[in-house]
Amino acid sequence: MVSEFTVWFGRLTLDEAGELIDCHPFEKNPDILAERLLELQEGGQKVPATAPDLRRLAFDCGFVDMDEDYDVLLRDVCIRAAKNRISSTDTDDVRIVHAVEALDDIDKNVNELSERLLEWYGLYFPELELTGEPLSRFVLAFGSRANVPDDHPLFEKASKSMGSELSFADEELLRSFASNLCSLYDTRRHIESYIVTGMGSLAPNLADVAGALLGARLISIAGSLQKLASFPSSTVQVIGANRALFKHLRSNTPPPKHGIIFNNIIIKNAPWWQRGKLARAFAAKISLASRTDFYSGKKDPSIKEKLELKLTAIRNANPSPPKKETKPGGKASGARGKGRKKKGGKR
Amino acid sequence: MVSEFTVWFGRLTLDEAGELIDCHPFEKNPDILAERLLELQEGGQKVPATAPDLRRLAFDCGFVDMDEDYDVLLRDVCIRAAKNRISSTDTDDVRIVHAVEALDDIDKNVNELSERLLEWYGLYFPELELTGEPLSRFVLAFGSRANVPDDHPLFEKASKSMGSELSFADEELLRSFASNLCSLYDTRRHIESYIVTGMGSLAPNLADVAGALLGARLISIAGSLQKLASFPSSTVQVIGANRALFKHLRSNTPPPKHGIIFNNIIIKNAPWWQRGKLARAFAAKISLASRTDFYSGKKDPSIKEKLELKLTAIRNANPSPPKKETKPGGKASGARGKGRKKKGGKR
Repeated sequence: MVSEFTVWFGRLTLDEAGELIDCHPFEKNPDILAERLLELQEGGQKVPATAPDLRRLAFDCGFVDMDEDYDVLLRDVCIRAAKNRISSTDTDDVRIVHAVEALDDIDKNVNELSERLLEWYGLYFPELELTGEPLSRFVLAFGSRANVPDDHPLFEKASKSMGSELSFADEELLRSFASNLCSLYDTRRHIESYIVTGMGSLAPNLADVAGALLGARLISIAGSLQKLASFPSSTVQVIGANRALFKHLRSNTPPPKHGIIFNNIIIKNAPWWQRGKLARAFAAKISLASRTDFYSGKKDPSIKEKLELKLTAIRNANPSPPKKETKPGGKASGARGKGRKKKGGKR
Repeated sequence: MVSEFTVWFGRLTLDEAGELIDCHPFEKNPDILAERLLELQEGGQKVPATAPDLRRLAFDCGFVDMDEDYDVLLRDVCIRAAKNRISSTDTDDVRIVHAVEALDDIDKNVNELSERLLEWYGLYFPELELTGEPLSRFVLAFGSRANVPDDHPLFEKASKSMGSELSFADEELLRSFASNLCSLYDTRRHIESYIVTGMGSLAPNLADVAGALLGARLISIAGSLQKLASFPSSTVQVIGANRALFKHLRSNTPPPKHGIIFNNIIIKNAPWWQRGKLARAFAAKISLASRTDFYSGKKDPSIKEKLELKLTAIRNANPSPPKKETKPGGKASGARGKGRKKKGGKR
């Protein structure tokens, strides 16, 4: 029986004894060969039962003339293929994950630096009740409080301040410090809008249901959109609440009701007795949205609409806090006590 | 007997019965009165045995006409005096302390952000072996590796990189992130030169002996130059080694040989068996320098010269490591064991 198959250097036809009948070698260009190799690996072609000696076949084909030539070319092609595969790992969600992490880093660092500015500038203008970005903008704009114009709302405070005088060198220094802070705030906004744009094309449904930033953070914690799509919605519900979750699994404390999805206004602004139910419905739709994004990529506005209906239903069904006698807290604490005793007995 | 003294509103002369004989009231300007009040408090004037009724005397002087007038003016003067006193707490060393703390904050934050940049940019150019400031400058200058000119030393790497392509939006973002980092590095240098200049006028001897940055850091940890000058040199030697010192005091571990003065090249580059001796000599001269700075303020180059002589003497006297049999380690560990037993017995 004649078998026909492709190897890294060309398309071969062999007879039953494994002897070469026909051969179409590829172009001897490492870049093209590397691409063919990757295609070959992805194609998952069947290899003949008795593995043919490729080196000999390459000679027979006239693809190479020397042993050394074969080795050098194969090595080169493999390295290029590996590089190409590494390049292709950079998908859109990797970019989003990096942007989210950079955003968190900037947030943290900006907070520390603006506290430092607050303390430092407080020497010269302790009455100024600004913090964070407004403080940095104020210091950058005016420097010394002597420069505050008399139509500025803070002029009164500035002129009567008990702070000490700001020398020119100090003013320069504080202004340059504040200008750094301001540009960090600008970059923060820049990254935020990048995430919003990126999420609009990467995961439009997730961005629609959960909001772009929360969606991006979920992808970042899960690792990729694919992983997020593979999580059950109960996992999505508690992503970011790892400590509380493992404490629950270890020692029978009440399970966490929500992880980082708490940051969405739906849950944050809800009264406490609705939060668990809302979080469950919300996580279910997030899960659905991420799956739709990963597998179809098309925007489906019905997910958000259904979520709204569900949320309204939950809110209407639970208008007031549960009464004390039906509160599950007492029961749970009883169960907890039993659990502990059992554990103790086992030791 | 006639007594004459100054109160907050003027200079009074009273007879033995406490009746007003003569009176020179000050100008009725709260700012001037506040300054006089501070002078009065600093002067430490003797108060007559029977405290006179100042309110009545103020009326008698004709300083005020109404009770209310007296209260309002006194309150105003006291507030202004308090504000003036707060302003005057801002001495040069407070500025230096703030600058040192800002420097530490920037160092910490710049490190975190540059690690983030390294990881982020690594997606696009993993072969780039730059970190920290050179990396930020590279990203700011070129953005995408496609922009590296062909006469640049990194052109070869850039053109063969296995990193993925950088889209325009990503390039913008990374460049703005890198530009923040670059300006933080600039501010860091700015603060450093501010500290060097500031130390040159605040503590010239300390800056000469220990170096401006180390001197500033010592002042920062001590709280002020005055406090640093009041420390014994054994304290100066271990400033910044708090954990090791208290561990030593608690549980008889060997005492720390040096705190942050380790950062000086004298100690950092010395072989281990000279470090303790060098640190002791160095701390003694730092202590001396800070006292000279605080009490005279004049530069005395002989401190540094004597330090050099002392250091050379120590180096010449200890050219090689002590032999094993004379190493105090064995003894100390024996003593430590005893110490522990004693402690146990006391409990």
